[in-house]
Amino acid sequence: MIDRIKRDAECYLSESRYNHTLGVMNEAIRLAERYGEDREKAAVAALLHDLGKSKRIYELLKLDCSSDIILEENLKKNGALYHAVASRMVAERRYSISDSDILNAVRYHTTGRPNMTNLEKIVYLADYIEPGRDFPGVEEMRKISYEDLDRAMLCALENTIVHVVSNGQILHEDTVRSRNYILARLTKLGVKK
Amino acid sequence: MIDRIKRDAECYLSESRYNHTLGVMNEAIRLAERYGEDREKAAVAALLHDLGKSKRIYELLKLDCSSDIILEENLKKNGALYHAVASRMVAERRYSISDSDILNAVRYHTTGRPNMTNLEKIVYLADYIEPGRDFPGVEEMRKISYEDLDRAMLCALENTIVHVVSNGQILHEDTVRSRNYILARLTKLGVKK
Repeated sequence: MIDRIKRDAECYLSESRYNHTLGVMNEAIRLAERYGEDREKAAVAALLHDLGKSKRIYELLKLDCSSDIILEENLKKNGALYHAVASRMVAERRYSISDSDILNAVRYHTTGRPNMTNLEKIVYLADYIEPGRDFPGVEEMRKISYEDLDRAMLCALENTIVHVVSNGQILHEDTVRSRNYILARLTKLGVKK
Repeated sequence: MIDRIKRDAECYLSESRYNHTLGVMNEAIRLAERYGEDREKAAVAALLHDLGKSKRIYELLKLDCSSDIILEENLKKNGALYHAVASRMVAERRYSISDSDILNAVRYHTTGRPNMTNLEKIVYLADYIEPGRDFPGVEEMRKISYEDLDRAMLCALENTIVHVVSNGQILHEDTVRSRNYILARLTKLGVKK
């Protein structure tokens, strides 16, 4: 399965996006090892996460999004988020993946959501910190990601909120719900006050 | 009506909150004049906006929140937002106010909401820029508020989002919805790209 998706990713994604995808895969495997999660599921979800950005794979599958899925209004307006829904659809249709943990890790890798599983957090963070990423504070984010999944998620989501707002982009409500959920959880546990 | 609410506000609010309330009232009247809105409605909504913060006015009205209103989960957890719901309730019960524009200006003065009326924006901004407020950029906010209500709302909401996240507080989804709505509107109009 992994080899098949990897071949597709190489075929249908641009070189830079394919290299990013391999970076996410390797990072997700390392994080899965660190947190005792399934390495293969992490690799599969990581390889799939951006496949929905490829128009060619759409054509191949003859996906008709308008009739097949009802998208939230925000997703329709925002291609950057839409691809996560599309990637999940590719996972189901082209590879017949039915594991809900893998499917949700793909679907929520851009926004997060409340009450994420470890695998979902791992794919979100692997996408955020893979070696090709370069932004102020990325080294600190890499460090925290291997210390505590929830603290890392809070940090990544808060960075994202500030970044998106500062850049005049639409801020998805799932990102905010996800951040509020983790903040409340960590505060309750006494990790953050 | 204005004199009665003013007397109550003086009686039931702390001195500093009463002075803030008068500041919001005067600012709201000035903004109403600037944008051709009803001065009296602006004054009434401004005087009412924080009355729900007074526990004494609750006791006076014997409000039983648990049985009377169904609050969103987020509001229950966040007193700073809850008071806006309580203030609206005080407006209806103690002063028999039924004007939906006044009631909504009170209810949404903390979070905003999509598709706000001018009066709602005026009370939100008056609360943000009244003379007692002091934060980096407040003078610029005062200037923009008298130039363009929507640009001022976008700026105030974005400042609030960054401030709330940076301070580790729960970010209400209405604030984000409100900001996304105005951003999309201004972008469509070509005011912001």
